[in-house]
Formats: sequence, C-alpha cells, structure tokens
Amino acid sequence: KQDIITMSHGAGGKSSHELIEGLIRPILANPVLDALDDAAVLPLSRFVSLDNGNLPELAFTTDSYTVSPVKFPGGNIGDLAVNGTVNDLAMSGARPIALSLGLILEEGLPVALLREVLESIAVHAKELGISIVTGDTKVVPRGKGDGLYINTAGIGIVERTWPMGQHLIQPGDKVLISGSVGDHGIAVMLRREGLEMESEVQSDTQSLYDLVHHLFVHMGSAIHALKDPTRGGVATTLNEMAVSSDVAIKVYEDAVPVKESVRGACEILGLDPLTIANEGKMLVVVAKERADEALSLMRQHPKGQDARIIGEVQEEPRGMVFLQTLLGGTRVLDMLVGDPLPRIC
Amino acid sequence: KQDIITMSHGAGGKSSHELIEGLIRPILANPVLDALDDAAVLPLSRFVSLDNGNLPELAFTTDSYTVSPVKFPGGNIGDLAVNGTVNDLAMSGARPIALSLGLILEEGLPVALLREVLESIAVHAKELGISIVTGDTKVVPRGKGDGLYINTAGIGIVERTWPMGQHLIQPGDKVLISGSVGDHGIAVMLRREGLEMESEVQSDTQSLYDLVHHLFVHMGSAIHALKDPTRGGVATTLNEMAVSSDVAIKVYEDAVPVKESVRGACEILGLDPLTIANEGKMLVVVAKERADEALSLMRQHPKGQDARIIGEVQEEPRGMVFLQTLLGGTRVLDMLVGDPLPRIC
Ligand SMILES: Nc1ncnc2c1ncn2[C@@H]1O[C@H](COP(=O)(O)OP(=O)(O)OP(=O)(O)O)[C@@H](O)[C@H]1O
Ligand SMILES: Nc1ncnc2c1ncn2[C@@H]1O[C@H](COP(=O)(O)OP(=O)(O)OP(=O)(O)O)[C@@H](O)[C@H]1O
Ligand SMILES: [Mg+2]
Ligand SMILES: [Mg+2]
Ligand SMILES: [Mg+2]
Ligand SMILES: [Mg+2]
Ligand SMILES: [Mg+2]
Ligand SMILES: [Mg+2]
Repeated sequence: KQDIITMSHGAGGKSSHELIEGLIRPILANPVLDALDDAAVLPLSRFVSLDNGNLPELAFTTDSYTVSPVKFPGGNIGDLAVNGTVNDLAMSGARPIALSLGLILEEGLPVALLREVLESIAVHAKELGISIVTGDTKVVPRGKGDGLYINTAGIGIVERTWPMGQHLIQPGDKVLISGSVGDHGIAVMLRREGLEMESEVQSDTQSLYDLVHHLFVHMGSAIHALKDPTRGGVATTLNEMAVSSDVAIKVYEDAVPVKESVRGACEILGLDPLTIANEGKMLVVVAKERADEALSLMRQHPKGQDARIIGEVQEEPRGMVFLQTLLGGTRVLDMLVGDPLPRIC
Repeated sequence: KQDIITMSHGAGGKSSHELIEGLIRPILANPVLDALDDAAVLPLSRFVSLDNGNLPELAFTTDSYTVSPVKFPGGNIGDLAVNGTVNDLAMSGARPIALSLGLILEEGLPVALLREVLESIAVHAKELGISIVTGDTKVVPRGKGDGLYINTAGIGIVERTWPMGQHLIQPGDKVLISGSVGDHGIAVMLRREGLEMESEVQSDTQSLYDLVHHLFVHMGSAIHALKDPTRGGVATTLNEMAVSSDVAIKVYEDAVPVKESVRGACEILGLDPLTIANEGKMLVVVAKERADEALSLMRQHPKGQDARIIGEVQEEPRGMVFLQTLLGGTRVLDMLVGDPLPRIC
C-alpha cells in the first residue's frame, strides 16, 4: 500500500476508489455513507418526530473544485461547481433547494476574476431557481493554493417515490447515455496546454435537473439508476454500478457518441474517451421494455438530443464491464487507472 | 478599493466584511443569505407542500479549514472542522444531524496523517451522534496546497421556537461569554512559530451544542442571540451584532476572562485577546432580567464553568462597540484590522 497521497488518488478512478473504500469509508463508516452514491439520502423522519403528515427525504452532497485553468471554453470553475452539485442531487432523484459556497482564495487573486466567477455562480443558480444561502471565505498565502478553489454542498428534496440507485440495476436493464462523452475533460486539457483543434472543444457543463425531471414524469419506477460520469468517465462510473449491484455491464462500443474533435484529441494524446470526465451528461439505467421510450423522451429534450442506448446489464461476469465491438469482439473495460488528465474539475 | 485578494480578506475582520458585504453579498443576493448569520435557516414549508403536519426549519452552514499546522495542542484540523460546523448550527438554534466532508489533499501528504485526521473526525462526530454522510476528495499538485484543507458543511433541525439572531439584540440586554478568550488562536500560533510559554496553551476547540441545549431548556426566548467568536474574535463578533441590530454594545473590559498564559503571549506579541479566534466559546445575549440565571446555568455546565457577564446592549452610539474599564474610562473596540494571526482555522 502506498504511504503518500498521489495525484491519482484524486483522479476519480481506481486509486480514488481504493482510498475511499480502503481508508475513508472504514473510518467514517455509517449506513448512509456506505451507499457511496452521488448524494446521501436522509429520511427526515429519522430526525424529527411529527405526529401527522409525512416528512420528506433530504438529499445532501458536496464537491470541491480545483480545476486548472479556472476559465475554459464553455464555462468556469463557478458554473462547474453549481452544475456539479446540482447534478449529484438530481442523480439521486432530488430537486435542489439550496447551495453553500466555500471559497479558498490564494493571496494575489485578482478581485475581477473572483467577481466574474461569482457572477457566473449567481446566473446559474438563478436559472435553476436556487440560492447560495451560506458560505465561507478563506485566504491562503501565495504558493499554498492556485487562484481559487471552490466547495459547494447542496441540499435537495427527494422527489422520486421508488427505490433507485447504483446498487439496484438488474440483468436485462438497458444503459443509456444522454449525449456525447469526453467533451469536458478534453476542453479543459486543450485550454490548459494551449493546444487547438480544428473546431474548438467546449465543456458540456450544464445542469441535468430538468432532463431528470422530464424522465421521471414519464418513466417513474422504470428508471433504476442515474449517475453522472464525472471524474473517471463512463468507464469508471459503469464499473462502480456493476460492483455495487453485483452484475455485469456490456457496452456496445460503437454506440457511444464521441464528437469528432474529441475523438481526434484522444487519438493524438492516447486517451480513451470512455475514461474522460463529463460535467453535463448522465447514464440512465432503465427496465429493458421501456428503453426505447426512455430514448425518445431524452431525445425530445434539448439536453438529451444525442442520447443513445449504449449497453445492457447481464448476470455474469459479476462486477465487470466489457466492451462489445460491431464485429463481435469483446474486451474488459476497466476503471480509469492513473491520472492522465489532472485537475479537470 | 483593492484589486487583489490579500491575507486580511481571510482573517475574519474588517477586510473580510468588506469583501462579503461589498462583493459577495450583492452578487449572490437573496433573503436567506442576507442575514449573514452563522447558519442559513430554511423553512422546509417553502419547498415542500404537505397538507397535514408542520414542517421543521433546516439550518445549513459551511466552513473551510486551512489551519497551519494541521495538528496543534488540543486538537487538529479534523476536530476543528467538525466542532466548527456543529457550532455554527448550534448558534442558530439547531440540532446538528449530518455533515459533509470535502478534502483537498496536497500530493505527497502522508497517508498516516490523513488517517489520524479522519479518525479524529470520526471520534468527534460519534460523540455528537452525527454522521459524515457524504464527501469528496480532490488532490492538488505539490506547491498548490498545504498538506490538507477541509471543508465541512452541516445540516441541522432548528429546535428553538422563538426568533433569535444577531439582528435581534435589544438595548438593556446583557452579553455573556461562556469562558476564556484567545486560547485557540494563541495555541496554534505558538505551535506554528515553535514558541513555548511556561504553561502550554491549549486550543479550546469543542462542540457547544450541549451547552446551547442546556440553556435553551431553561431560558427559552430570553435568549436573543448566540454567536461563536471565531475569526476576528469577540471584538469582531460584537461589532457584527451591533451593526446588525443597530445598537451599541458596552464591554466591561476587566470582566473578560483571559488565561494568564494567553495574556502573556498577547503582551509579548502586541495582540489584543479580544481579536483572537476562539473555537469552543460562545457569546450569549439575554434579556437583562434573566442574565444572572443564564450565568449560573452556564457555570453549572462543564463547558461554561468560566462564563462571565461581559457587557450590555445600549441604544447609542448605534452600530458601535466600546470598552469600559474599571476606572470608568471608555474606548472604541473596533473589528479586527489586518491579519496578525494568519491561518488559525
Ligand atoms: N472525503 C470523503 N469523505 C466521505 N465520503 C467521501 C469522501 N470522498 C468521497 N466520498 C464518497 O465517495 C463517493 C464517491 O465520491 P466522488 O467524489 O467520486 O463522487 P461524485 O461527486 O459523484 O464524483 P465527482 O467528484 O467526480 O463529481 C461518494 O458517495 C462520496 O460521498
Ligand atoms: N463565499 C461566501 N459566499 C456566501 N456567503 C458567504 C461567503 N463567505 C462568507 N459568507 C457569509 O458571511 C457570513 C460570515 O461568514 P463567516 O465565515 O465569517 O462566519 P462564521 O463561519 O460564523 O465564522 P468562521 O468562518 O470564522 O468560523 C456568514 O453568514 C456566511 O454565510
Ligand atoms: Mg456524481
Ligand atoms: Mg460530483
Ligand atoms: Mg465561516
Ligand atoms: Mg460562526
Ligand atoms: Mg464558522
Ligand atoms: Mg465528488
């Protein structure tokens, strides 16, 4: 076992999981955390006794953002933070109601940049009808930070009325993706390295709450799991699901939508688009017989226009994800290993 | 106006207030944030429609911790984070129910140190009967962090049934402190600088929820405001209250409890104990006629043994805090200016 923290512990892939499963989870162990899903679900009835009436369940989540650079094509650290936290709430079936904002500023940060980020936070929160209700501001000396780091925590009200989560996917279920993969990670990396592709790659950072709501209204309990493939990408997220539900997932390799520019950048850099972070996409696992309906519902929605059915759940080999090509070949799709694209969120 | 962020923007004093009031609050403006109290109070009835039954109010708060060094006499960054967030909930009259934990680790951090901090978090949370239900772990490259930074956000259920807050203190009210001031800031600073006093100064980091609960049970609505004098110390916190309620506060200088070792360190270093951060003390503002009762209640409790009545609220000069000495002299007590003790939380 490693005795110091390395960049790959923060990459969202294999090392992150070893750190969380091997150190953090055993020490902090409690039934709510143990689900290790996008947000914690807290039944208020466990904390408040109310004679009459049913108390809702709360969803609670947090993410820190250390992306470099702070601004990139399609967004900045501020809207990334708002969308990211809202999406973790949405993935757990909750309507976001409030956010917190923790700022860790590096001495020397231009106030104009801070203003720009705050304005972007305000605009995105307003669009979503939620408020930043509490916050905190710390400053660290030059060389002990990097411009600014943000933490957002979010509270939501669980809206779904059926059990749902990465531990509840079943053999036969179909797996959908709401759009193209790899855009966010590649957009940040190209900007950071000063590289340019023929057509600019834009981050896909966006809130998915409205798309989730649209699906919920029409599909209800046919939706078995939602998950945003952020750090570690689709490959890592599907592996988490497969382990959590003790099933196998087959991915139809050629069905996964990847933009030409993203595919080009990945080829040049030797990266697999399936391991690259997305910040405005979701994986949806639905009952087999409702998969086509889910697909057309998503395609009706502006944030799901490029949705595809990309795979299916099988019984065996348990806990594994594998790719099937058009020609029928198969190979194992592992979690992200190492940290090929550091600090993309 | 300054165009770059300086260390004093994070010190919790005058510059912090200018940043929050002048930049952050106008941009993020919303009625809940505008109270600028220790925690946001969210009436759930605003977000959920429930035909029968009364929905509780939630409290929601966050703080980031960047203390250097990470371990100090009496505590470490982990218990500081748990206690600090619990205290901001307690100050708003809420019972803590769940915490989030955001870690920003610097590449090269010894896993053994992370383990020690996590264990300390687990122990303190357990004592309080609350869980870390969600979290996030990021890693930043060497030289872009400092060991580890922590963000905790917390949710609580508001237990008080009367209005309370820094904007509700009234002329005539008495001001109490639960114990000695300056311990935390001085303990951290002495450790950081490698200085030693005759008797070691220990941080006062501790949860105040039980002390608040004890007061609530017996005093109810006679308690007009609670506030933990963290960054900026008692001087800054009282100034915030005076401005918020548009009243004056008179402090009996000689009544403020300061340990000998802390007073000694302050004299050597030219610091005012009233501007130094505490992490386990609270200011309590109570109706005049109940002040003695509040004092004896606090003294009954192990965390309030050294409680004192340290001042009173007056009509004029509005928005100001002043010190009165035993001999009758008075002088203005301003907020903390500059950043004489950086990174103490
Ligand atoms: N420091 C931590 N303390 C407690 N739980 C943690 C911590 N770090 C991660 N977790 C938990 O581990 C699980 C995975 O966390 P992770 O951050 O990878 O999820 P995510 O937020 O959905 O992804 P991303 O951070 O890439 O957006 C979550 O359930 C999270 O609550
Ligand atoms: N970045 C921010 N965004 C939104 N609100 C903020 C931000 N920073 C501070 N605030 C708000 O300003 C007020 C004062 O914050 P501050 O951090 O000084 O309070 P505190 O947490 O009680 O003190 P301390 O951080 O010293 O423990 C709080 O109401 C807080 O919610
Ligand atoms: Mg997620
Ligand atoms: Mg996330
Ligand atoms: Mg704070
Ligand atoms: Mg406070
Ligand atoms: Mg605080
Ligand atoms: Mg996360």
